[in-house]
Amino acid sequence: MRSILVSLLTALTFSAMSQPYQPNWASLDNRPVPEWYQDAKFGIFIHWGVYSVPSYAPKDVSLYARYAEWYWKRLVDSTAEGHAQFVAYHNRVWGEDFKYPDFVQHFKAELFEPTDWATLFKKAGARYVVLTSKHHDGFALWPSAQSWNWNAVDVGPHRDLAGDLMQAVRAEGLRMGYYYSLYEWFNPLYQQNPDRYVEEHMLPQLNDLVTRYKPDLVWTDGEWDLPSERWHSPEWLAWLYNESPVKRDVVVNDRWGKETRSKHGGFYTTEYGLVHNDEQSGQMARPWEECRGIGHSFGYSRAEEVSDYQSSKDLIHLLVGLVGRGGNLLLNIGPTADGRIPVIMQQRLLDMGTWLEANGEAIYGTRMWTGSAANEQEGVFFTQKGADLYVLCTQYPATLRLKGVAGGKVRLLGREAAVKTKQSGGQLTITPPAILPLGDARDYAFVFKIEGGAGR
Amino acid sequence: MRSILVSLLTALTFSAMSQPYQPNWASLDNRPVPEWYQDAKFGIFIHWGVYSVPSYAPKDVSLYARYAEWYWKRLVDSTAEGHAQFVAYHNRVWGEDFKYPDFVQHFKAELFEPTDWATLFKKAGARYVVLTSKHHDGFALWPSAQSWNWNAVDVGPHRDLAGDLMQAVRAEGLRMGYYYSLYEWFNPLYQQNPDRYVEEHMLPQLNDLVTRYKPDLVWTDGEWDLPSERWHSPEWLAWLYNESPVKRDVVVNDRWGKETRSKHGGFYTTEYGLVHNDEQSGQMARPWEECRGIGHSFGYSRAEEVSDYQSSKDLIHLLVGLVGRGGNLLLNIGPTADGRIPVIMQQRLLDMGTWLEANGEAIYGTRMWTGSAANEQEGVFFTQKGADLYVLCTQYPATLRLKGVAGGKVRLLGREAAVKTKQSGGQLTITPPAILPLGDARDYAFVFKIEGGAGR
Amino acid sequence: MRSILVSLLTALTFSAMSQPYQPNWASLDNRPVPEWYQDAKFGIFIHWGVYSVPSYAPKDVSLYARYAEWYWKRLVDSTAEGHAQFVAYHNRVWGEDFKYPDFVQHFKAELFEPTDWATLFKKAGARYVVLTSKHHDGFALWPSAQSWNWNAVDVGPHRDLAGDLMQAVRAEGLRMGYYYSLYEWFNPLYQQNPDRYVEEHMLPQLNDLVTRYKPDLVWTDGEWDLPSERWHSPEWLAWLYNESPVKRDVVVNDRWGKETRSKHGGFYTTEYGLVHNDEQSGQMARPWEECRGIGHSFGYSRAEEVSDYQSSKDLIHLLVGLVGRGGNLLLNIGPTADGRIPVIMQQRLLDMGTWLEANGEAIYGTRMWTGSAANEQEGVFFTQKGADLYVLCTQYPATLRLKGVAGGKVRLLGREAAVKTKQSGGQLTITPPAILPLGDARDYAFVFKIEGGAGR
Amino acid sequence: MRSILVSLLTALTFSAMSQPYQPNWASLDNRPVPEWYQDAKFGIFIHWGVYSVPSYAPKDVSLYARYAEWYWKRLVDSTAEGHAQFVAYHNRVWGEDFKYPDFVQHFKAELFEPTDWATLFKKAGARYVVLTSKHHDGFALWPSAQSWNWNAVDVGPHRDLAGDLMQAVRAEGLRMGYYYSLYEWFNPLYQQNPDRYVEEHMLPQLNDLVTRYKPDLVWTDGEWDLPSERWHSPEWLAWLYNESPVKRDVVVNDRWGKETRSKHGGFYTTEYGLVHNDEQSGQMARPWEECRGIGHSFGYSRAEEVSDYQSSKDLIHLLVGLVGRGGNLLLNIGPTADGRIPVIMQQRLLDMGTWLEANGEAIYGTRMWTGSAANEQEGVFFTQKGADLYVLCTQYPATLRLKGVAGGKVRLLGREAAVKTKQSGGQLTITPPAILPLGDARDYAFVFKIEGGAGR
Repeated sequence: MRSILVSLLTALTFSAMSQPYQPNWASLDNRPVPEWYQDAKFGIFIHWGVYSVPSYAPKDVSLYARYAEWYWKRLVDSTAEGHAQFVAYHNRVWGEDFKYPDFVQHFKAELFEPTDWATLFKKAGARYVVLTSKHHDGFALWPSAQSWNWNAVDVGPHRDLAGDLMQAVRAEGLRMGYYYSLYEWFNPLYQQNPDRYVEEHMLPQLNDLVTRYKPDLVWTDGEWDLPSERWHSPEWLAWLYNESPVKRDVVVNDRWGKETRSKHGGFYTTEYGLVHNDEQSGQMARPWEECRGIGHSFGYSRAEEVSDYQSSKDLIHLLVGLVGRGGNLLLNIGPTADGRIPVIMQQRLLDMGTWLEANGEAIYGTRMWTGSAANEQEGVFFTQKGADLYVLCTQYPATLRLKGVAGGKVRLLGREAAVKTKQSGGQLTITPPAILPLGDARDYAFVFKIEGGAGR
Repeated sequence: MRSILVSLLTALTFSAMSQPYQPNWASLDNRPVPEWYQDAKFGIFIHWGVYSVPSYAPKDVSLYARYAEWYWKRLVDSTAEGHAQFVAYHNRVWGEDFKYPDFVQHFKAELFEPTDWATLFKKAGARYVVLTSKHHDGFALWPSAQSWNWNAVDVGPHRDLAGDLMQAVRAEGLRMGYYYSLYEWFNPLYQQNPDRYVEEHMLPQLNDLVTRYKPDLVWTDGEWDLPSERWHSPEWLAWLYNESPVKRDVVVNDRWGKETRSKHGGFYTTEYGLVHNDEQSGQMARPWEECRGIGHSFGYSRAEEVSDYQSSKDLIHLLVGLVGRGGNLLLNIGPTADGRIPVIMQQRLLDMGTWLEANGEAIYGTRMWTGSAANEQEGVFFTQKGADLYVLCTQYPATLRLKGVAGGKVRLLGREAAVKTKQSGGQLTITPPAILPLGDARDYAFVFKIEGGAGR
Repeated sequence: MRSILVSLLTALTFSAMSQPYQPNWASLDNRPVPEWYQDAKFGIFIHWGVYSVPSYAPKDVSLYARYAEWYWKRLVDSTAEGHAQFVAYHNRVWGEDFKYPDFVQHFKAELFEPTDWATLFKKAGARYVVLTSKHHDGFALWPSAQSWNWNAVDVGPHRDLAGDLMQAVRAEGLRMGYYYSLYEWFNPLYQQNPDRYVEEHMLPQLNDLVTRYKPDLVWTDGEWDLPSERWHSPEWLAWLYNESPVKRDVVVNDRWGKETRSKHGGFYTTEYGLVHNDEQSGQMARPWEECRGIGHSFGYSRAEEVSDYQSSKDLIHLLVGLVGRGGNLLLNIGPTADGRIPVIMQQRLLDMGTWLEANGEAIYGTRMWTGSAANEQEGVFFTQKGADLYVLCTQYPATLRLKGVAGGKVRLLGREAAVKTKQSGGQLTITPPAILPLGDARDYAFVFKIEGGAGR
Repeated sequence: MRSILVSLLTALTFSAMSQPYQPNWASLDNRPVPEWYQDAKFGIFIHWGVYSVPSYAPKDVSLYARYAEWYWKRLVDSTAEGHAQFVAYHNRVWGEDFKYPDFVQHFKAELFEPTDWATLFKKAGARYVVLTSKHHDGFALWPSAQSWNWNAVDVGPHRDLAGDLMQAVRAEGLRMGYYYSLYEWFNPLYQQNPDRYVEEHMLPQLNDLVTRYKPDLVWTDGEWDLPSERWHSPEWLAWLYNESPVKRDVVVNDRWGKETRSKHGGFYTTEYGLVHNDEQSGQMARPWEECRGIGHSFGYSRAEEVSDYQSSKDLIHLLVGLVGRGGNLLLNIGPTADGRIPVIMQQRLLDMGTWLEANGEAIYGTRMWTGSAANEQEGVFFTQKGADLYVLCTQYPATLRLKGVAGGKVRLLGREAAVKTKQSGGQLTITPPAILPLGDARDYAFVFKIEGGAGR
């Protein structure tokens, strides 16, 4: 009767000398985030689960309380913001006797076509995908032994949603990752004895997830209750980095304990601008990623109207702004309980794809330009790739004056019109050509490429 | 025990001398379509009913078979196109023992907010609304005594959907109309004795609809099985025009019997370009209207992806083309069974509203320009209002040369830029100014207004 | 467009001279009740329908309000007895938004085995069966064109329950009849225009029932709202007696209009002792029948416990008492929504069969004994068949003294023990033998057969 | 992170010297079964759970496969007897995509009235109750932390069925016990690592059950996969006997490991005559108990007809026979998913109560009579209480000759008639009086009480 934790510790003890990473942050933080992640820039976040059945959050609460995936918590926790509104809605539509776990009977995924999803993500220009393998409600989208009768194969869809999507995503050449919540709101084992929960439930489950699907990315969350030591995060990451089947390429985030955000782990996460350290997001010590919904809620919310959705233009500006500041965008979609991606989300993603098809070279594989600070200007962002400099404009500019740039040939991406330039000392002046509307997403942001403009 | 038909006939007999319209087409066709209808130009069609529950049609069938509102018919009629695919889908998802009438238990409309709908229609620039009060399945959206236990108050939503929407639509100042199917596929009375069906079921039901909600428009359909005489359409229209509470303003279409399309009744209807006479749509003898879905299916189809939806640009071009040829657009939306308008449809409608806010004066209250034929050119359409001429361009033109136009001031609607013109004999040459993209629906079509350009 | 009523009247007019029965009570009442009915004595009544889903009536109301088949009426009619209790129960268990017609989705009859039912009825000793083809809720158990989407083939079980049971019952050699409610509580046509309801709905439906299944018995109900003239009962019965396919053998009851009970029609009906004329049930002018539930409610009520059920002994005493007074017993069972006869009812029926197997000759084919009045005694009843007299005792008697009887051989049915008798003038004295318990239903009532005891 | 097992072992180590029972069978088997249990004689077994929803087993399989509570196992295990029939039924009625855990949505217990149940058990003459707290499907009828989202409070009834029944049962003065399955067919933890299952799941769950409800009886089952050592049964029983809150009065059975039946633990269990050792049931070394259904299946089976139910007479004979041989009867009922005890079962229980009310002094508090063997005779059984001897006859006897009995006054229980006796040497001859049927359960078995007949 040897527990997973004992196994982890034993393995570590025996192999400590010969392994690159030790189970402490000083050692673990030495591991660089694999390059593929910074090159990718744009990923798709997917919140899908039992909460996709009620798929609702009230409108008359703060933005913070409009996440539909928090339905259970806000419904039963009388101290939670929005509690009264959730209760009123729930009782009217579902009845007081209907409890959250009862929703699973309506989670059927009967129209789920993973290859259609993957094709869409590819067309959108995304390079990686992160699916909620398990959210705070504890419901697993794969046949997890630790969540018996509370996972998508035992009940509800009766299908391995996590595995089926993984295969389709990889067939399109995209990277596959999983979101995983460390804590579970109402799991009695967690409530009564978090340490036993970690040992008997969480660690075996995480290991199963990694071993079974070999994810490129592990995106943890729900870490804020306990310090990383109690979650045994260092031990687990040492196993992940040293021994797991994905040790070479796997990317992780920074949510490994109440003290770790923007301090430890892999890339740093921000969420609707919520940054967990004192630094400006532009000066992150590590690769970072903003996650954001197309609508506001992560889980699909039927209460959201078009005014709650960001426009395609907004999203392209968001991507441009993040990449210009060195970040990634993990853009969230909320599929429906029957397995469809709402058409409005399809539209937004395709618009991004249209823009990226014309302008993607200014995004993928680029890095922040060191001259950015000196050229700060509203709505103008810079990236560089090798010696080339990209100027990304969210409004079509009248004139662009760039300090410290000695440019070569300048081109307006996606258009034929010639661009006039003038070099004057360390400043390059660009006079954009007259253009007409193309009437699609390419009108939403404009990129000037300056060959050799980034210097050596 | 006096039947409705007897009542109709008696009333007619007694009043024949004093009434303006007699129950024959020669007389009825003399009634002009009320002007409000031609001024309105743009209406919203709504297909909502029990079919919104399965809300599905297969993709691998002809366009004709992809209407989700025909689910029942295609499911049980083994000679119907798509039958096999409908059966395969139905049996997989719902099971063989689940029959179409069983769907009603899932038609709940629990999120239906009629004022939100009406606000949206108003913002979209629509001037009238047509709701399916009853489709071919016979299910009534109002408490129709003739459809006991097969209407939205007795079963399903338990709510007067037709009445509640009517009130909200009128509160926004829009006109309210109802679609009504003369025939019912599977009503045994219709199948066994169509004449008794007409007398005992259909005519009382139509009268109830008109008397109860006082519609501005009655949009019939399902007329093709029988000649208008068997439907007693002339008698009913004589009542509608002479005696009903809406006799002054009510507008009807041309679907009153197998021989009536594009021949008799009120305005003529086309549907996806399907015109029922030999004339070109541009030469219609009467006001006419094209109905069309935003997606392809009229009833909401969960099988439709973004590629099945017309873009906002397509829709604006459609409207421009129809109005330029003298027609109206009745643009269809398919709400969900829970009572929401899919966000993608909201987006399309708001885009149309954005364009119409800038360019609506070239649409509302206009008529076909008699000089259109002489100036035919791909993507360019004309309307006139009083002496003013509007040139509607679906592509931004390099130069416009208009024959037979002696223009006054020329303006590009919605933009500040000055327009250069040159008059040369009977030809007006317009040189459009340079413009930049605005990045919204106003980039999808452009209107030049020529004051006094339409001549006297 | 010729209505059924016109057809009836026309047929009657043309054939009046040559037909035995005219459409008036004076003529119709001349028709004797076919003999098979009086010979049969014991029938099974079956209340089955949508009400079998809630299958509930509260306990804290008068007996009259404990009929589960009245659920709909008591739920929505605020003046009905028990209304508050029905509402409280309904809202707790089903929710306020769930309406009675919604119950049909749970009426599946998935375990219905008509041959098992018929075998049981045969074993019980019943000779005829009466099924609710349609109760006051208007729901038809057969594919009635008049009840589109409100019958057992279109919705719910999707099966012809009335037809399938008829075939099984006849295969066992039993007679098949149907209960049919003339009125329908909430049918809007009935509410708005009862005359049109009768002509367009009720009469065609009744004709369809008779033509389709050729019932041996038509057991109407719900007649109290209108006089028989308004129901067109006389015309319909004239057709039934003169022309219908069952004219020779069909039996009807006395519920044909508010004035007809115990006055007109076929046999007279009583219900829990409720007799509709001044006569004592023992002096009925016609054959009569008491209907009674095994439990109290006719439709299955899940609220009924064993204390609400009559014991087998009670039921045998009931039968004995009725037959002794010249009546029939129509004993009701309430199947469940899934199509089973509750086992407690099976038990009761088999016990009756056990008793009837030993004592049936004192029941079937007998008539009231004219000497009954002179021998009235608590718990002792008499029947005669030919010259033989049967003395039916609900308690084992010490001594029996019978006036006006000159007996031959006397036997205790179902036992071997010899019976001692003494004739003294017009009185026969019987001294019952010592017996031991058999430990089954034969211990519940005892029959002495007196050969030739009934006189000529 | 101290496991329950470690706690158990530690407690035992420290207290070993001072505690009466050690964790080995030699010590544990020294504990006598508390006397209340042998005095009680008649208990009610209740099988209720998720299986009460399908509540079905096919009829064309061996008796062994007709237990409805084994539905899940037989449905998915293709090697199980009846598999094909279960699959055929399931697919027809529920559909292939409907899995066993999905049934829980229909387990509502909405009519459950525990006080009605308890009143009935009391009237039946039962002295204890044993409810399935958890069957082999792992579903717990109480809010067990170990069965999160797979217990009656989290899902389904949303009610503590085990606790609510316990309170009602005790209020009637009856003893309350729980059935508990050691193994769980499909629990992945059990399947993958039974030892971790025992430590992390089973032992904490059992402790919770005992601590929470303080049962008078723990009735384990599902023990056959593993030896008692692997289940840690000895350690757990040592805790139960030494330290638990019920250590004084608690009774357990003999199902603690594959080797323990009829060898170790508390009372011995038989089941439909299935005895697990070589001894004849009459010579059991310990108190023993036969469990048996009123119908055949333990869980309610809708497929069972009256012919599958034992008659009241059979059940009384069963009780008489068991008690006469020193055993108890644990008579099973299967409530429905909505929380009712089928009326046929109520009838059987009340009949037993009727008999016991008249004859209970021959049952309760009695012991086997040592003279039984010498007086063996079909249908005649003996019990003794103090010096009195009871002769229990399943048929009314002609004459009774009892060897080795020197009787005093002899009485026929429940009747007034005097009994004639004759003493001759060591033999007492009883001549039963003439009696008439009472027409109820008292006719099913007869008891002669011989004061002082049991000797000293």
